[in-house]
Amino acid sequence: MKTRDLFGAVQGDLGRVEALLDSIKDVDYGPLAEMLGMVLGGGGKLLRPGLALLSGRFAKYNLDLLVPLAASVELLHTATLVHDDVIDAADTRRGRPTVNSAYENSTTVMVGDYLFAHAADQVVKTDSLRVVRLFSETLMTLATGEIRQDLAAYDSRQTIRDYLQRIGGKTASLFSCACEGGAVISEAPEGSIAALRDYGYNFGMAFQVVDDILDFTGEEAEMGKPVGSDLMQGTLTLPSLLLVEKHPTDNPVQDYFTRPRPETLDTAIKMIRSEGIAQESYEMARDFSRRACDALAPLPDSADRQTLIDLAEWSLERRS
Amino acid sequence: MKTRDLFGAVQGDLGRVEALLDSIKDVDYGPLAEMLGMVLGGGGKLLRPGLALLSGRFAKYNLDLLVPLAASVELLHTATLVHDDVIDAADTRRGRPTVNSAYENSTTVMVGDYLFAHAADQVVKTDSLRVVRLFSETLMTLATGEIRQDLAAYDSRQTIRDYLQRIGGKTASLFSCACEGGAVISEAPEGSIAALRDYGYNFGMAFQVVDDILDFTGEEAEMGKPVGSDLMQGTLTLPSLLLVEKHPTDNPVQDYFTRPRPETLDTAIKMIRSEGIAQESYEMARDFSRRACDALAPLPDSADRQTLIDLAEWSLERRS
Repeated sequence: MKTRDLFGAVQGDLGRVEALLDSIKDVDYGPLAEMLGMVLGGGGKLLRPGLALLSGRFAKYNLDLLVPLAASVELLHTATLVHDDVIDAADTRRGRPTVNSAYENSTTVMVGDYLFAHAADQVVKTDSLRVVRLFSETLMTLATGEIRQDLAAYDSRQTIRDYLQRIGGKTASLFSCACEGGAVISEAPEGSIAALRDYGYNFGMAFQVVDDILDFTGEEAEMGKPVGSDLMQGTLTLPSLLLVEKHPTDNPVQDYFTRPRPETLDTAIKMIRSEGIAQESYEMARDFSRRACDALAPLPDSADRQTLIDLAEWSLERRS
Repeated sequence: MKTRDLFGAVQGDLGRVEALLDSIKDVDYGPLAEMLGMVLGGGGKLLRPGLALLSGRFAKYNLDLLVPLAASVELLHTATLVHDDVIDAADTRRGRPTVNSAYENSTTVMVGDYLFAHAADQVVKTDSLRVVRLFSETLMTLATGEIRQDLAAYDSRQTIRDYLQRIGGKTASLFSCACEGGAVISEAPEGSIAALRDYGYNFGMAFQVVDDILDFTGEEAEMGKPVGSDLMQGTLTLPSLLLVEKHPTDNPVQDYFTRPRPETLDTAIKMIRSEGIAQESYEMARDFSRRACDALAPLPDSADRQTLIDLAEWSLERRS
């Protein structure tokens, strides 16, 4: 099943978000246009925009305001990916060259800032100070989450609790913002706004946990990045934390952090794949996905609510 | 004369901006608190906040809304400095260690993003969508200016016109935003808003031209960075462009860009210092400063207007 088929009633409307994102790439300054083409070149799932539009369907569905919100959330997401690429010195993302591999670090930083600027520009077009406020709070949560992740690299004292706090900040907050923003724009009652915010947050948690599992269990060709790339860069995620928990005194994660060698990384990957750790991690993802669906209970039963439930289930089944 | 003495009626009120900036450093996450202390540690002139407050004095002076605007502008300025430090791999700024010299590039990027987030958070507190819109436009102009500067590094085909466009984007736009924002918040008539925007823009141009002169003529101890640091990093500013104009076929700038050697840089600095190029550059700064003062003509004659005029004159006389 293609991702896009999952967006139900807003599937067609996502074209407007894509067109808006395309128009942002269209600048009259050659080198910048080229870089924007690389990062906004398409191929993304537009999951956050899709959720923003869907969340706007429980009251007054106002596409003229929802489209800039959806674009804003995607731009913010892309900006953080670009800045992440400075950090990780990653050569590919989604299987295509990153801006960072073709340009200086400095230019990459500036392109990220340019995308932040466009994200801010779009969110202002929602004409809602409440949504702008939500956006700035999310930006702060994202930035704090990124700093925590960065400073925690190669620190094996981290706990699963630290991990959950970290992914709450760097991933779930933006999903939550997309859903809450869509609900606010549609002038939904406060109860529905809170329900969609909770849905978005728990959806984002499930989504990130699955991402972190796929980093170990996925195929390089499908994922567009090497297997175990998080651990390789010193980032502890749920599977590697569970491995440390299982073998507290002697495990390859600890060894790898002390002395990073490809063989140790391979051992860690093999152990995670063979010791039922993926299954345990999926348990946690399933729990978040269930909480996301439960959060929707206050909303009237409708095709849109069912689309959100289907998306939460898809987030567990996806392969890339 | 100390800078602070120049802020006239708003001198005391700047304390509230400082207190707000201090409160932002006060986070319960040790490593982040340390980094914020480094970049928001004080020592800056608070010129942009001062201009924002002063610009709010020509109609309803509302400090509760002007203070967040002023803080927002300073945070945005600091965020771009932090990201600049990634670019330039500079070891010191304002004579103190940069975040970048003590932490990884990646962490520096994130601290910059965190400051952007706070800037956005503060500007939302002005409760004015018009000011938020102005802020997002300025952010875009700044980002574009930075990209232009970065991609133009070591390109000796640049013209003075390119230079003016560049500093308009990376410096004058933020001064203009500070002044226009202050005027909008105070609900000044449109004519006054336009006057203060023009003042801010031209003030910023004069300020940056003088900055670029002092980079060649100042003393390392006073400036907190080595003499000729712009040229050293491949950035052509007005003095070096005038040198190229004077010696189109044979000049040390061209030589330095082809083969960067300390001796060639020294020759360029000496020629700029001895051939009346600083004087010529000051002519241009003076012209911008004059335009800034002329822009204030529509405003009623007042002590605040005089303070702005004094500031424009100070910008030409300053030594650091």
